[in-house]
Amino acid sequence: MRTTTGWRADGPTLRRATLERRDLRPDDIAVRVDYCGVCHTDLHAVRAHTGADGPVLVPGHEFTGVVTEAGRAVTRFRVGDPVAVGNIVDSCGACAMCRAGQENFCHEFPTLTYGGADREDGTTTLGGYSREYVVRERFGYPLPAGLAPAAAAPLLCAGVTVWEPLRALGVGPGTRVAVAGLGGLGHLAVKLAVALGADTTVVSRTPDKAADAHRLGAHDLVVSTDPEQMAAARDRFDVVLDTISAPHDLGRYLRLVAMDGTLSLVGHLGAVTVQATDLLIGRKKLGSAGSGGRPSTAALLDFCAEHGITADIELMPSARVNEALDRLGRNDVRYRFVLDLSDLS
Amino acid sequence: MRTTTGWRADGPTLRRATLERRDLRPDDIAVRVDYCGVCHTDLHAVRAHTGADGPVLVPGHEFTGVVTEAGRAVTRFRVGDPVAVGNIVDSCGACAMCRAGQENFCHEFPTLTYGGADREDGTTTLGGYSREYVVRERFGYPLPAGLAPAAAAPLLCAGVTVWEPLRALGVGPGTRVAVAGLGGLGHLAVKLAVALGADTTVVSRTPDKAADAHRLGAHDLVVSTDPEQMAAARDRFDVVLDTISAPHDLGRYLRLVAMDGTLSLVGHLGAVTVQATDLLIGRKKLGSAGSGGRPSTAALLDFCAEHGITADIELMPSARVNEALDRLGRNDVRYRFVLDLSDLS
Repeated sequence: MRTTTGWRADGPTLRRATLERRDLRPDDIAVRVDYCGVCHTDLHAVRAHTGADGPVLVPGHEFTGVVTEAGRAVTRFRVGDPVAVGNIVDSCGACAMCRAGQENFCHEFPTLTYGGADREDGTTTLGGYSREYVVRERFGYPLPAGLAPAAAAPLLCAGVTVWEPLRALGVGPGTRVAVAGLGGLGHLAVKLAVALGADTTVVSRTPDKAADAHRLGAHDLVVSTDPEQMAAARDRFDVVLDTISAPHDLGRYLRLVAMDGTLSLVGHLGAVTVQATDLLIGRKKLGSAGSGGRPSTAALLDFCAEHGITADIELMPSARVNEALDRLGRNDVRYRFVLDLSDLS
Repeated sequence: MRTTTGWRADGPTLRRATLERRDLRPDDIAVRVDYCGVCHTDLHAVRAHTGADGPVLVPGHEFTGVVTEAGRAVTRFRVGDPVAVGNIVDSCGACAMCRAGQENFCHEFPTLTYGGADREDGTTTLGGYSREYVVRERFGYPLPAGLAPAAAAPLLCAGVTVWEPLRALGVGPGTRVAVAGLGGLGHLAVKLAVALGADTTVVSRTPDKAADAHRLGAHDLVVSTDPEQMAAARDRFDVVLDTISAPHDLGRYLRLVAMDGTLSLVGHLGAVTVQATDLLIGRKKLGSAGSGGRPSTAALLDFCAEHGITADIELMPSARVNEALDRLGRNDVRYRFVLDLSDLS
C-alpha cells in the first residue's frame, strides 16, 4: 500500500489524517492532487457523518493534478501530465449505458470517487481532499493546456452536470435558456449556455446578482420573488435549468417553460412532487441530470479550453476546508471553493 | 331559448331532464347528438356531484351527430353535415397558445364542453349526454365520411389525448412505444402508435389482455406484476404512454424508459411524486398531455379516416347511462362505452 495525507470526516468536522492508497494496478495512474473543488455533495456527506465509529469518509470528487506514476499497461498518460478526475472512477464497462458512453448511468451503478466500493477489492473509495489519488487511467482526463488547473477543477463535477443536459436538450444558437439559481452549478451553466449561443436568462431570488449575471454573459435576470416578473416570463424558455440546491416548489419554474420545453433538475434531488396539470398545460417536461459520461466530460474540457471557460473560484489552503464547508452551507461563496492541497505535502 | 332532453346529475345518479340551449349566435351550429362516449372524467364529475342543490351537471365531451341548424355567419357547415365535438367549445383565440393552435392550453383556460362558463353569457356549459348541443362552428369538426359515427365519438377526447403526445414526441417508424394500461385511452394509443409505424408494446397488470393487445396491433405485452418481465424491459422504450387511471408508482414505469426518453402521463392526473434519481439515471423526462388543439384534432380525424381507426366500443341506449358509469368504475368495459342518444327523441 501507499500512504498519503488527506482530510477525513470525524462527525461533521474534517481532520487531517494519514490515508492508504492501493498499489498501482497495470492500468492505474497515481495523481498528485493539486486542486479539489468543494461540492454540495461533500457538504451533505460530512454533515451526515456519524463520528469516529462511522464509515471512513474523505470527500472530494472534482480535482486536477499531475500524474506521478503510471502502471505498466497505461497508454494515455505519462508521468508529469496534467490530469483531471471527476465523480466517477469506475463502471462495469459492459452494460448498454457504459457502451453508450454514459458510465454515469451504469446499470451496476458507477463506482463513485469517494464512498464507493472498489470493483476489485471492495474497499471504500476515498476522495480528492487528499494529496494523492490512484485511479484507472480510463477515468482520468487529460487537462487541456489552456485551462488553469485550480479554476478547472469544478468543471469535473459542477461543469459536466450542467453540460450534459444543455447538450442533451439541444441548446444552441437561439435557444431560450433560463438558469434558476446562481451558485456553483448555475454560474457555470450561464457561461456554457452563453458560449453555446443560447439567449440566456438568470432567475434569482433577489436582484443582487444582476451585475454578476451580466458579467457572466447572461442577457437578462428575472427576480423569482417578484410575481410580476415571473408572470411576464411565463412560457418564455425552451429550457429551464434548475440549479437550486434546497427543496422548492417546481410549479413556479414549470410555468416559465415554453410549450414542449423542459425543466431540468440538477440542484436539489430527492423526491419531487409536481401537479400533472403543470406539465399538461403546454405539454412540458420535467427531467434531471447529474454527473457525466466519459465522452461528454472530455468534450466539455475541450469546449472550455476553446472558449476560455473555467469556474469563478475562491481558492484556499486545504487546512481551511471546514471553513469552506461552513460558508458553502450559508451559500457564502462566489461561486466555488477550491482547496489548494499543496499544504499537505 | 331552445329546449332539449338530457341526463343531469342528481348526486351520483344521472336523471333524465329537460335542458335549455342558447339560441344560435351568428357563428353557432346546432348539433343533433347521436353518439356520446363515456369518459373517466364524466365518472369523476358525477361521483363528486353533491345532489339537487349542487351545480347543474350534464356530462359528455366526445360526441358525434348531425348539424340541424346553422347561424347566419357559419361557413364551414351546412344542415345535414356530420359533425364531431370534443371537450373544448371555446377559447380566447388571442393568446400565444391559441395562436399556436393549442386552444387546450389557452392562457384564459379553454371553455370546457360541460362545467365550463360560456365566454359571452357566463352560463354553465352542459355536455353531450343530451339530444342537442349548440356550439361555435370553430369547435365543431367535420366528421370524415369513412368513420362510423358511434365508434368515432371517443376519438374526440380519448383519441386526441393520446394523439397529441405521440405526435409531439415524434413517434414514427422505429420508435419503441409502450402503452401502460389497456382501457379507453390505451387501446386507442396502441392503434394510433401502430398506424404511425412504431414498435408498440402493451404493459398490463395481467396477461389476460395479450390476445386483445395483439389484435389491436401491438407487437408485445409486458406484465407489470411480473418483476422479471419488468426488469427485462428496463430502458427499452423511447416513449412510455401511461394511461393508467388510478394513482400508481411512476418509478416502475420510468425505469422502462430508454435514455433521453419520456414517460407521458395521460391517465391519472393530480399531484405526482417521483424520485429525481429515477429521472436523472438515463436523463429521462416526465411529461403529461390531455385533450388537443383544433389543428391536431382535425389531423387526428383525417389520420383515423385514412387508417380506418375508430374505438372498440360497447354501444348502449342512453337510458342505461348509470349502468355504464358503474361498470366504467370497475374497469368493466372493452374499451369505451358510447351512449346512443336516439332514445331521447
